[in-house]
Amino acid sequence: MISSDHPFDQAILLVPAESGTYSGHTSEHYWNAISPFGGTTVATLLQAMLQHPHRLGDPLSMTVNFAGPIRQGEFTVQATVARSGRSTQHWQMEIRQAGDEQPVVTGTAVFAVRRDTWSDTEATLPDAAPPTALARYEPPTKVPFLQMYDMRYADCDPLAGGADSTTQCWISDVPPRRLDFPSIAAYCDSFVPRLFVRKGGARPISTVTLSINFHVDSAALAQQHGRHAFGKARANAFNGGYYDQEGQLWAEDGTLLATTHQLVWFRE
Amino acid sequence: MISSDHPFDQAILLVPAESGTYSGHTSEHYWNAISPFGGTTVATLLQAMLQHPHRLGDPLSMTVNFAGPIRQGEFTVQATVARSGRSTQHWQMEIRQAGDEQPVVTGTAVFAVRRDTWSDTEATLPDAAPPTALARYEPPTKVPFLQMYDMRYADCDPLAGGADSTTQCWISDVPPRRLDFPSIAAYCDSFVPRLFVRKGGARPISTVTLSINFHVDSAALAQQHGRHAFGKARANAFNGGYYDQEGQLWAEDGTLLATTHQLVWFRE
Repeated sequence: MISSDHPFDQAILLVPAESGTYSGHTSEHYWNAISPFGGTTVATLLQAMLQHPHRLGDPLSMTVNFAGPIRQGEFTVQATVARSGRSTQHWQMEIRQAGDEQPVVTGTAVFAVRRDTWSDTEATLPDAAPPTALARYEPPTKVPFLQMYDMRYADCDPLAGGADSTTQCWISDVPPRRLDFPSIAAYCDSFVPRLFVRKGGARPISTVTLSINFHVDSAALAQQHGRHAFGKARANAFNGGYYDQEGQLWAEDGTLLATTHQLVWFRE
Repeated sequence: MISSDHPFDQAILLVPAESGTYSGHTSEHYWNAISPFGGTTVATLLQAMLQHPHRLGDPLSMTVNFAGPIRQGEFTVQATVARSGRSTQHWQMEIRQAGDEQPVVTGTAVFAVRRDTWSDTEATLPDAAPPTALARYEPPTKVPFLQMYDMRYADCDPLAGGADSTTQCWISDVPPRRLDFPSIAAYCDSFVPRLFVRKGGARPISTVTLSINFHVDSAALAQQHGRHAFGKARANAFNGGYYDQEGQLWAEDGTLLATTHQLVWFRE
């Protein structure tokens, strides 16, 4: 089990129970307005698979569906291998809480053993000032989890309002922490909501479903020494009470770490 | 049950068995090189939920994981409501085939009842010649399902090879067919593989997982009279035997229908 005293590692800490079942506890540090920060929920599911004795290779892709409200306290994670091949492995996941008959979170994931092939990255790191040259953003909303991330916006004010929802910023943990699959997964849900960007301020929103495609394996990740990731995100459309978000996440050296997509419920 | 004589409707035809379970049959028309065209598999899963008596609203998002090889013949679709709220509904899906103990396909989906809100589309239809002004593309690979789609590339040769995997083209069914959720879902897997675009020809590839976010509801879809959709796709990265694809799909009038993302296994 990978663990440390960092509050993020404590937030995603899982205690194995029976086969493929783990128990976890929501974190005060990563609490959002009325439920846990979704990024820690995604990272916790990933952690369940990473520490599963039957795991094959590294995470390739995952989808997490926020089906119902997660209450403060204990929860149970179930991670089941649906099918395992020579080089890919398919997972089904659920999070449940006592007193709730239905899962609060569902998901699927694919793990894989990568191999040497031709490689190329079309999505290159945008030209931006380094994190040391930018100021840490002070979010006007004082929910706990926002204190756990250092965001440094490059060439944009995330709450200026306007016709384009694109933002780009350096993201790192507070206190600093190495980049690993769980932290990358959490970063993928850390972008300021696109509706806030368009409207110039906070509105009621809730992520319904989130997918991540990982573009590195653990060997490539181990070579990363920077503690900052660069995130760029945008929306395609807002309508009928829902909008989407597409994001890209790079390491400081320009390695594309992950791309992510989510669909979000909103109220004006 | 929505059905017609169109080969696509026949390909995704499901016969209800017990609750949430349907039986289907692979289609000769939509056969790919060694397995069914993934787009019909995705559309078939969607069809199972669309015709389910407990369905709430319209599809919002779905993820389909291609876990194992689908053989020619009968298959069973299981679609289960994981959790249903006032306006959103979460599904878990599987496809199984006799003689195979593990699912060949897994997935999750979210359905929702949309409501009137502020709306805006940032991803606008690219400026391209209308489908009537372009020639139908003749694919060099003669797999059956390619005959079922009329592709008209705008400003690009899909197999020219080069440093940019972006393509854009008009897509329609052969014979022509109305746009509906299943056809949109299938279109989302119809883009020429990004590896072929980069390498200038076919290579062994296999979609591992595919996600779709829908940006229209059934009322908006009913207003669509055009039979062509415009698709634009690109890759972020190729490495370690996998690459991704991001796509956008519009109706002829510029309505954004769906955005889609997939991760693909490849061999050089």
